[in-house]
Amino acid sequence: MPDPIRERLTGLRRDLHRYPEPGWCEFWTTARLVEEVERIGVDELAVGPEAYDPEDRMAIPPEDRIEEWFERARERGVDDDLLTTMAGGNTGAVAVLDRGDGPAVGLRVDIDGLFIEESGEPGHLPADEEFRSETGETMHACGHDAHVTWGLATLEAIAESDFSGRLVVFFQPAEEVSGGGHPMAESPYCADLDYLFAVHVGLDHPTGEVVAGIQKPLAMCHVDVNIRGTSAHAGKAPEEGNNAIHALGTAIESVYGIPRHSEGMTRVNVGRVEGGTASNVIAEHVDAVAEARGETTEVMEYAKSELIHRFETAAELHGCEADATVESESPRADSDPELAEVVAQTAEGVDGVDTVLPAADFGASEDATFLMNRVQADGGLATYLVVGTDHPTSHHTPTFDVDERSLDHGVDLLTESILAVAEDGP
Amino acid sequence: MPDPIRERLTGLRRDLHRYPEPGWCEFWTTARLVEEVERIGVDELAVGPEAYDPEDRMAIPPEDRIEEWFERARERGVDDDLLTTMAGGNTGAVAVLDRGDGPAVGLRVDIDGLFIEESGEPGHLPADEEFRSETGETMHACGHDAHVTWGLATLEAIAESDFSGRLVVFFQPAEEVSGGGHPMAESPYCADLDYLFAVHVGLDHPTGEVVAGIQKPLAMCHVDVNIRGTSAHAGKAPEEGNNAIHALGTAIESVYGIPRHSEGMTRVNVGRVEGGTASNVIAEHVDAVAEARGETTEVMEYAKSELIHRFETAAELHGCEADATVESESPRADSDPELAEVVAQTAEGVDGVDTVLPAADFGASEDATFLMNRVQADGGLATYLVVGTDHPTSHHTPTFDVDERSLDHGVDLLTESILAVAEDGP
Amino acid sequence: MPDPIRERLTGLRRDLHRYPEPGWCEFWTTARLVEEVERIGVDELAVGPEAYDPEDRMAIPPEDRIEEWFERARERGVDDDLLTTMAGGNTGAVAVLDRGDGPAVGLRVDIDGLFIEESGEPGHLPADEEFRSETGETMHACGHDAHVTWGLATLEAIAESDFSGRLVVFFQPAEEVSGGGHPMAESPYCADLDYLFAVHVGLDHPTGEVVAGIQKPLAMCHVDVNIRGTSAHAGKAPEEGNNAIHALGTAIESVYGIPRHSEGMTRVNVGRVEGGTASNVIAEHVDAVAEARGETTEVMEYAKSELIHRFETAAELHGCEADATVESESPRADSDPELAEVVAQTAEGVDGVDTVLPAADFGASEDATFLMNRVQADGGLATYLVVGTDHPTSHHTPTFDVDERSLDHGVDLLTESILAVAEDGP
Amino acid sequence: MPDPIRERLTGLRRDLHRYPEPGWCEFWTTARLVEEVERIGVDELAVGPEAYDPEDRMAIPPEDRIEEWFERARERGVDDDLLTTMAGGNTGAVAVLDRGDGPAVGLRVDIDGLFIEESGEPGHLPADEEFRSETGETMHACGHDAHVTWGLATLEAIAESDFSGRLVVFFQPAEEVSGGGHPMAESPYCADLDYLFAVHVGLDHPTGEVVAGIQKPLAMCHVDVNIRGTSAHAGKAPEEGNNAIHALGTAIESVYGIPRHSEGMTRVNVGRVEGGTASNVIAEHVDAVAEARGETTEVMEYAKSELIHRFETAAELHGCEADATVESESPRADSDPELAEVVAQTAEGVDGVDTVLPAADFGASEDATFLMNRVQADGGLATYLVVGTDHPTSHHTPTFDVDERSLDHGVDLLTESILAVAEDGP
Repeated sequence: MPDPIRERLTGLRRDLHRYPEPGWCEFWTTARLVEEVERIGVDELAVGPEAYDPEDRMAIPPEDRIEEWFERARERGVDDDLLTTMAGGNTGAVAVLDRGDGPAVGLRVDIDGLFIEESGEPGHLPADEEFRSETGETMHACGHDAHVTWGLATLEAIAESDFSGRLVVFFQPAEEVSGGGHPMAESPYCADLDYLFAVHVGLDHPTGEVVAGIQKPLAMCHVDVNIRGTSAHAGKAPEEGNNAIHALGTAIESVYGIPRHSEGMTRVNVGRVEGGTASNVIAEHVDAVAEARGETTEVMEYAKSELIHRFETAAELHGCEADATVESESPRADSDPELAEVVAQTAEGVDGVDTVLPAADFGASEDATFLMNRVQADGGLATYLVVGTDHPTSHHTPTFDVDERSLDHGVDLLTESILAVAEDGP
Repeated sequence: MPDPIRERLTGLRRDLHRYPEPGWCEFWTTARLVEEVERIGVDELAVGPEAYDPEDRMAIPPEDRIEEWFERARERGVDDDLLTTMAGGNTGAVAVLDRGDGPAVGLRVDIDGLFIEESGEPGHLPADEEFRSETGETMHACGHDAHVTWGLATLEAIAESDFSGRLVVFFQPAEEVSGGGHPMAESPYCADLDYLFAVHVGLDHPTGEVVAGIQKPLAMCHVDVNIRGTSAHAGKAPEEGNNAIHALGTAIESVYGIPRHSEGMTRVNVGRVEGGTASNVIAEHVDAVAEARGETTEVMEYAKSELIHRFETAAELHGCEADATVESESPRADSDPELAEVVAQTAEGVDGVDTVLPAADFGASEDATFLMNRVQADGGLATYLVVGTDHPTSHHTPTFDVDERSLDHGVDLLTESILAVAEDGP
Repeated sequence: MPDPIRERLTGLRRDLHRYPEPGWCEFWTTARLVEEVERIGVDELAVGPEAYDPEDRMAIPPEDRIEEWFERARERGVDDDLLTTMAGGNTGAVAVLDRGDGPAVGLRVDIDGLFIEESGEPGHLPADEEFRSETGETMHACGHDAHVTWGLATLEAIAESDFSGRLVVFFQPAEEVSGGGHPMAESPYCADLDYLFAVHVGLDHPTGEVVAGIQKPLAMCHVDVNIRGTSAHAGKAPEEGNNAIHALGTAIESVYGIPRHSEGMTRVNVGRVEGGTASNVIAEHVDAVAEARGETTEVMEYAKSELIHRFETAAELHGCEADATVESESPRADSDPELAEVVAQTAEGVDGVDTVLPAADFGASEDATFLMNRVQADGGLATYLVVGTDHPTSHHTPTFDVDERSLDHGVDLLTESILAVAEDGP
Repeated sequence: MPDPIRERLTGLRRDLHRYPEPGWCEFWTTARLVEEVERIGVDELAVGPEAYDPEDRMAIPPEDRIEEWFERARERGVDDDLLTTMAGGNTGAVAVLDRGDGPAVGLRVDIDGLFIEESGEPGHLPADEEFRSETGETMHACGHDAHVTWGLATLEAIAESDFSGRLVVFFQPAEEVSGGGHPMAESPYCADLDYLFAVHVGLDHPTGEVVAGIQKPLAMCHVDVNIRGTSAHAGKAPEEGNNAIHALGTAIESVYGIPRHSEGMTRVNVGRVEGGTASNVIAEHVDAVAEARGETTEVMEYAKSELIHRFETAAELHGCEADATVESESPRADSDPELAEVVAQTAEGVDGVDTVLPAADFGASEDATFLMNRVQADGGLATYLVVGTDHPTSHHTPTFDVDERSLDHGVDLLTESILAVAEDGP
């Protein structure tokens, strides 16, 4: 890849890295990518509600958070018209190239950041080279800055190629909370695609390694739980309370004890708890944030219903009530081996790629599965591929980083794979 | 009681009610009472570090909270010199009358408010008559505004009487967090008192009822706990985490199961929990606020050490570590029947008092017990008395209020009791 | 006391000690005491169903246990007619002296042993002097052998005195399981008594010490719980089970966490658990034996209903069902101070008694409270007194023993107290 | 298969079915199979300690159980010399045919029954046709009676064939408790085998179906746990106890909450609990029987060490001590596809077999894996095959039964597979 392009990729990625926004709050990020898409020139560009039905969104954050990031974006100079389009948290975009006969090909990248404060320690490259997150509270700690870069650079490369067919690039918001996959999958832009490529960076695969088709992403759901009891003076009348914190304790113990399932792996977690007021008050209220996963969608449903049952019954045991709300969920979807094979063969020819794995397990979850299931239901083929990167620490940690050499690899692999299916079919 | 005095008492109480400050942040409240003490005229007035050794303070809040209320007090017009004296959270004061031969008599009142947002609903007198808390977050929901009023009005009444002896009035900060009793008890002002009266309003006793000597306040401790584990991705590598929230669940279950004690009642509570970040992360950190009480100091010590042991061992069970810090504690102390008898006899003659109980159990805790134990250890007598009031709802609720008729009762009862011991001895 | 009498007392106690029988199985013990009562000569002797309504019995053991001890008694030579009277577990007796005008006085002693294997170690007096339990599985580890001896010897002493009035001696079965107090209290023999003395040996009071009236026995209930789930192969299909052992774990944790009560002490315990079959089977069935106590009958009722609620809800949490059966219960009853005063004054004159406590707390429970409540409800006075004894180890341990010097003390104290109320009234 | 042979197979299986013996107590069963082996005539026959080192045995039952079944066997007429050889629970046997050049082939069958009381209901064939278990407490509820029959009939068929090579038939005791696989694997008879066939009946595969090579048996361990605390009176001194039942509750909750593992499935179970004495005694002692499994031996080791850690720490939390003993364990071993292929091809030609699955998952555990690992470590090939049978209810239930048509299938399949590897090699 010529150096100027590499520099541009790196520059774009670092620009995005400096300003990570959480799910459904990617106002500036969307504006930034829209700017690039317009520069490239496409046949169709749909932003927010133009790209999907806002009613289909999941895991929408509290209004005040949306408002706060909306205002931050305005202060950062985002165009008012664009902001108006995205008002209420309708971020993300879809870009389309329509270039004559040929298959309809989708490419899905996600654009959101995480609530992790990025490391400022020496040795952390973004700190050393001064492109660390400027927000003070959020971080691109899962590499979505690289994903957006890939989406834009691949779009540009295809636009400049002799590609014949239709290319739809999904810049999806809110992947980290499994919130954006569903509306994108329900969108008309996702209908009748012949091929879909979803892509992730890293995932413990080193620079130079490619996984052609991920198997077994876990189906997942996020559940918010609210336990309400009755407060009382802990010294004077403990029997008059209905102790929401005690109910939480019983629920935590019970939830991790959900029986394993013979049909496949399960995962359960209570990841956040907060409640009560003071040491001398029986707690009236507790909030908890939990999740369940399963090797199949059915096994996830089992774990989800057990999780809710256990929270509700633990609350009842202590005279409290628990309301559990499924904030979002994502199904399981597997990569089609035929399409993965195209990726694998293409990868052999990509400069810098030295190892190609036909398949690998995932272990985590992804709401790209909504789009994959949609494409497969419509008769198309889908694969979820990984472009390795030497990341110094795990995803979702304050010192996560992307080896920028993998920026090239991803653009080349995606571009060539899209051209391959357009020309030959799998 | 003449109407003008009653009006002045009511006005003073309402003034204090409008601006409740939390423990060790009573900058304005101290300034307001100092203003009254100076108007009355006393032989000695010691503010903050002049009254006690700051090192003896317990349950000191975080610096930023102290700073915030310090600035608020400055904005509310508190004198800079006085503020400087109290800097760092050294609030409260001691006022002394030295009037010739006679016994040394102590009167202890507490001055702090609570983090409860006061009701603005019609029917709540402070809302209807416009003396509701103006802070937006704190409230005199335990009647300490009445206590300060009693302390000042009794000081004034004794100053104007023919009292012979020494009267020491303790305006103690931070009772709600058991933080101020210990330094006041260790103060030279508390040495060698012949008598000590501590007083509370209400406690479910109606207007017109007096309890001459409370028995069995529970010994208590506040414990802050910090559980540290190891975070991990809840889907990809659950076995790599050391789950602080799971440890919390085990600890909660265990703490409430501390065995009852044959030597007396115990109480345990976990009143506040907060920790973890997101549903897909094994929690690395959790904070909990707990307490233990006991019918005797020894039984409280038993419950406290069990509570700490259980938090630590529950953490260990999940590969975590727990640090437990005893933020504050208060011992048990009982009222001396001889001194309670003086109060009981005096109460019979107080206008508006129709029921006198020689003694009653308490059920809760109080750090006046530090002062009582000190006085009793020095050979003096102490009693903790209650002046009833018709409070519409429980202490520590947003609609708690004091029946202002009991302001008179308290002043009369305290004044006459002090005069009685000064003249006759018990 | 003349030596021959002391020897007879000791011999009788040792005879009883050799053959302890569990509750409602005291066939031989009843026969042995009936033999003594007949030797003494009384005006009325009622055995088993002649003394109470069998329907009023509580905590009746399984039929096969009753049958086993019935057969053992037959083999030990108990008379067939007497056995027939007691068939089905209707043990115990009431003996009455009717001696002209005067008050009706009750004396209640209990007669059952415990399922504890008695120590055979040197140094344990019953082992050294060869009157250790011969049953191999039961033991008079709570001193009821002394109680029966006191009942008989006091009956004899009163019979030989110039007592005027009515003396009713209750030889009550099944105290250890709170099963016999209720039917005895409901019996016509318990109606309209003017005075009732209930008595216990030891209870941590040494030889020579007497407690004239016990206060605050805890109200108590025994609850049997049966948890039923669904078994499944723990390896092949864990999700198909409804795990009764897991439900038990949740229930145990929850039961000990029943909130303390502001109206008085509570106690809860799960004292026996058994269930499941093998390590590779999800347990289908578990049995648990639990109890709840309270400082008042109301507080015990609170703890009892919470205990049952928690077992049921813990079962539900794991998809199981729990059946809880209240096997027996006993209320609280306090000693009347007037009658305790008679005992205290009498005790001053008893040879060998050197310390007299007017009252003491109990800490445990006793179903003599049924009889006390009955007598008090009928307008009479009741006291529960303790005759101290140097017991080497705690009650209910394999090396418990009674200091036989206290046999005299008890007979003298009871006899003289009965004569005192008969002559003077309290 | 000729009818007389079928009749003999059926008769032998029913004979074995009538008298199931638990692990390491198969005295009569061993004698019965030795009788058959001797009738057939072999080159070598090793019984008990002649076949393996008794020190290598795992999960040895209590001495009194061994003694009881030893005496039962004597009463059932087992020869004294044979009994002497097996004294102390050294049951089982190995039979060897040495027939000239050719590969060394192993066949492993297991011989023990289960502690399940067999159904006597009409409709249960063994009840209807009068070959139900006569022991009153044990049952061949997993089909090991069919396994022994297969082992003997295959031995006989090979003996009568022109087989050239060495055939070693392992009649292994104590499979149900994972106790006999280890000593058999360590035995010299298991050294240097070229091929090993292990076989099971049923496992939810119907009559006519064969699985040529089972994959993914779970590695497993049995753990016995003994929790020791301090007893105390639950009413009088609850704080003096160290509550073994409370510790059990905490342990149960914790054990089921062992984090899932990213490297493969885990299973945990507490299958049996027993402890405590009475409702009013804080329990001093509890026993629990638990197990852990893992998709790999490493994952099982993880679950095992967590299980032990959690029992120990839960005990510590309640002031108790827990001793955990690993009674037995079995590793994971996978069938070699090359050898499974031989079985699959052979199965195609077996009369009555209509479905051949090349592989299937197992879900449960098996200590045949010890022998498989040994053979594979020595350079040989091993497979674990299943011969389907229409079993009316699940394995390990009182109405389990084997469709006797599968007796033929197993003998034919095993015989022909052995001949196939002897002639051609895989």
